[in-house]
Amino acid sequence: MSASGSPKKSPIPPETRLRELGIQLPPAPTPFGAYVPAVQAGNLLFLSGMLPTHGHEPRVLGRLGQDVDVDSARNAARIAALNAVALARQHLGTLDRVRHVVRLGVAIATTGEHSGQVEIADGASELLRDIFGDAKMSCRLIVGVASLPLGVPVALELIFEVEEPS
Amino acid sequence: MSASGSPKKSPIPPETRLRELGIQLPPAPTPFGAYVPAVQAGNLLFLSGMLPTHGHEPRVLGRLGQDVDVDSARNAARIAALNAVALARQHLGTLDRVRHVVRLGVAIATTGEHSGQVEIADGASELLRDIFGDAKMSCRLIVGVASLPLGVPVALELIFEVEEPS
Amino acid sequence: MSASGSPKKSPIPPETRLRELGIQLPPAPTPFGAYVPAVQAGNLLFLSGMLPTHGHEPRVLGRLGQDVDVDSARNAARIAALNAVALARQHLGTLDRVRHVVRLGVAIATTGEHSGQVEIADGASELLRDIFGDAKMSCRLIVGVASLPLGVPVALELIFEVEEPS
Repeated sequence: MSASGSPKKSPIPPETRLRELGIQLPPAPTPFGAYVPAVQAGNLLFLSGMLPTHGHEPRVLGRLGQDVDVDSARNAARIAALNAVALARQHLGTLDRVRHVVRLGVAIATTGEHSGQVEIADGASELLRDIFGDAKMSCRLIVGVASLPLGVPVALELIFEVEEPS
Repeated sequence: MSASGSPKKSPIPPETRLRELGIQLPPAPTPFGAYVPAVQAGNLLFLSGMLPTHGHEPRVLGRLGQDVDVDSARNAARIAALNAVALARQHLGTLDRVRHVVRLGVAIATTGEHSGQVEIADGASELLRDIFGDAKMSCRLIVGVASLPLGVPVALELIFEVEEPS
Repeated sequence: MSASGSPKKSPIPPETRLRELGIQLPPAPTPFGAYVPAVQAGNLLFLSGMLPTHGHEPRVLGRLGQDVDVDSARNAARIAALNAVALARQHLGTLDRVRHVVRLGVAIATTGEHSGQVEIADGASELLRDIFGDAKMSCRLIVGVASLPLGVPVALELIFEVEEPS
């Protein structure tokens, strides 16, 4: 699945991929409360829960199985992942310092519905794979939850491994 | 927001802050099953899920949107955070060995309600900020869940970065 | 609780325990989407969400308080834990490289029921304790969630500390 025959030892740097994909990153999200957007400990960069927001405004609202379908929730996951990438870049200066996307957690607000969860989570995973490449692909956890802040349908947990320790 | 004009390079140590705030820590929580309260790996200290308990007894019961309001759940978050601080001190000997509060996860039991989640989570975040200071503030994730052990309304996930590796 | 009077300094290696317990590990789970089963960063090994599956097929379906009882969910937790152990072995070559089971997260799909959650989570914790021993026992978090992928009743989050860094 690796893009355009790139040799294994020199994958395309994420900043280059981002340009090639024509992706414009949004402004990095800012906190809603008494916390910070990201904390680095050693080589691990932990992000706050990433929502499908722009500024402090939700872009998608609702719960799966009630007022949001799989396509909308999948799109919400992609928007939240773009926020995560914007935040990682803001913290690191450049995405080329990301050694690995370690873990992606996907929380999907739902009335109890479980079908479509993999497709929704892939909205985030596929964006991260497109930017960081197959060799840096994360492990993943999905949970269907009762609700999420602001009433959004998707929230992401992200841990990156980065080049220089804090 | 930093307390009393403390210079950036020498923040007030957490044990000193605790005394200044007049906070008495509860006894550190003990396990309910086949697990331990805390595990340190390298410089990271991972805590078990912290509940609003005293001993093994729940101090607050119920779910948001049903039988618990935002103020009670916010208080539950504060009690759980006090348990986390007590446990960190028990494990480390002194809170002054905490380099950073890396991540706070806040799970709120709810029928599906999402308003008030930020205020509830701030019940834990503000306590941690008061004790550890702005410079060690965590990133944060919130999820509204279906239920929590013992029927409590709030459970916390905590990761600390500490001075000496295990 | 340590097995058969083993001296503290030389606990029985996990691969030996596994043989003594007569446990046959299942094939390691493979991904359902754009992610990988496990990622190691430094000395930490993060696993994807472990489900009670065999191949890609769920072995147990339903939600606590609706169509799954505590015994079935407890068994599901054990099956998911066996998958986690199989995956850790596949990644590490041998379980004897596990220095510690750092954290176990247990998500239980439920209509809102909370009783039985500790017993269910112990289905995973006790298996891990039997294999890795008391000295490597994890911390633990439990959440009751609205639903899980494939409609299974239990999903596990696992972080291991391992001998050699990545």
